[in-house]
Amino acid sequence: MISDELKTLIQLFSKLPGLGPRSGKRIALHLLQNRTTTLPALTESLQIVGVKVQDCTICGNLDSQDPCTLCQDPRRDPSVICIVESVADLWALERTASYKGHYHVLGGILSALDGIGPEDLRLPSLLSRCQAGGVQEVILALNATVEGQTTSHYLTERLKDLGISQVSSLARGVPVGGELDYLDEGTLSAALLSRRMM
Amino acid sequence: MISDELKTLIQLFSKLPGLGPRSGKRIALHLLQNRTTTLPALTESLQIVGVKVQDCTICGNLDSQDPCTLCQDPRRDPSVICIVESVADLWALERTASYKGHYHVLGGILSALDGIGPEDLRLPSLLSRCQAGGVQEVILALNATVEGQTTSHYLTERLKDLGISQVSSLARGVPVGGELDYLDEGTLSAALLSRRMM
Repeated sequence: MISDELKTLIQLFSKLPGLGPRSGKRIALHLLQNRTTTLPALTESLQIVGVKVQDCTICGNLDSQDPCTLCQDPRRDPSVICIVESVADLWALERTASYKGHYHVLGGILSALDGIGPEDLRLPSLLSRCQAGGVQEVILALNATVEGQTTSHYLTERLKDLGISQVSSLARGVPVGGELDYLDEGTLSAALLSRRMM
Repeated sequence: MISDELKTLIQLFSKLPGLGPRSGKRIALHLLQNRTTTLPALTESLQIVGVKVQDCTICGNLDSQDPCTLCQDPRRDPSVICIVESVADLWALERTASYKGHYHVLGGILSALDGIGPEDLRLPSLLSRCQAGGVQEVILALNATVEGQTTSHYLTERLKDLGISQVSSLARGVPVGGELDYLDEGTLSAALLSRRMM
């Protein structure tokens, strides 16, 4: 009863993260109801992004320029590299406006379960950036999960081998606004261990 | 920090029903991670749907054919017309597989609050279909909301004026305040079967 073209579109939407068959249908209908406004705008925007936006060959960030605006920015400190799993994490850190160094997007995380090894990550360009000299510190800003910690340990080894002495990772502790009673034991004991003098 | 092209895409996704800035970003990043598979597929599908899928000039259903497959289907009974608010509701009724007549998609519902009057609905084609003769019964399958009931009463008046004696509505069984698209098939087909004469 639904035409094949529309079925294909609904299926494609249904498979996007956070969407399902029902929300896929809803979005497809919404676009057809706005076929002179939203539909052509979205089609055009997807085309432009597909052609223009590329991975930065240096850091792996997504941008319409290569090297990306962050890598080209002379106000940013090239002696510090912050390693993130994904571009979403890079954006999250940029929102804090408290980091002025460079980035490196791994494009994934080591995971024995998912069969993701070092060869699946954006590692060669990271290592050659560090080998080129001038890098004083590498900050590991990976998720506080088992995979994130495994990856952090692996990267620390590789980076120390290259002579990078300062390899740090994000502090573990009580989130701002967090209540102790609702925190898990792991976070709380990490926060206790790395307590700061007032 | 996010390039303008990508910002535009994220904004367009954010405004789709059920999505917000965060899910918009997530979808845009997912598409860029799959820029050789999902991204071109979605772009192409949107283009095809934008060109091919049109409103059926008879009933207002969305299809790549005009008249739509439902209007063209010789197995369907043209003497019964089921009036629905939207194509989503038509799909919901078709899922029950318990209705074999024709449809008419109003494309909206009377609402004083939203300033939607009879002139904003697909009414002229409905009235001319009924005037053409051959229509024995009209089933009002509108949402069981205040606006749906108002529209049902209004349509009953108009249809009775045209000499359509059998105007029915879905049975009580549709939860008050409920929307067709979210109902289970069982309730919906029971409501269809026990429709009442107005």
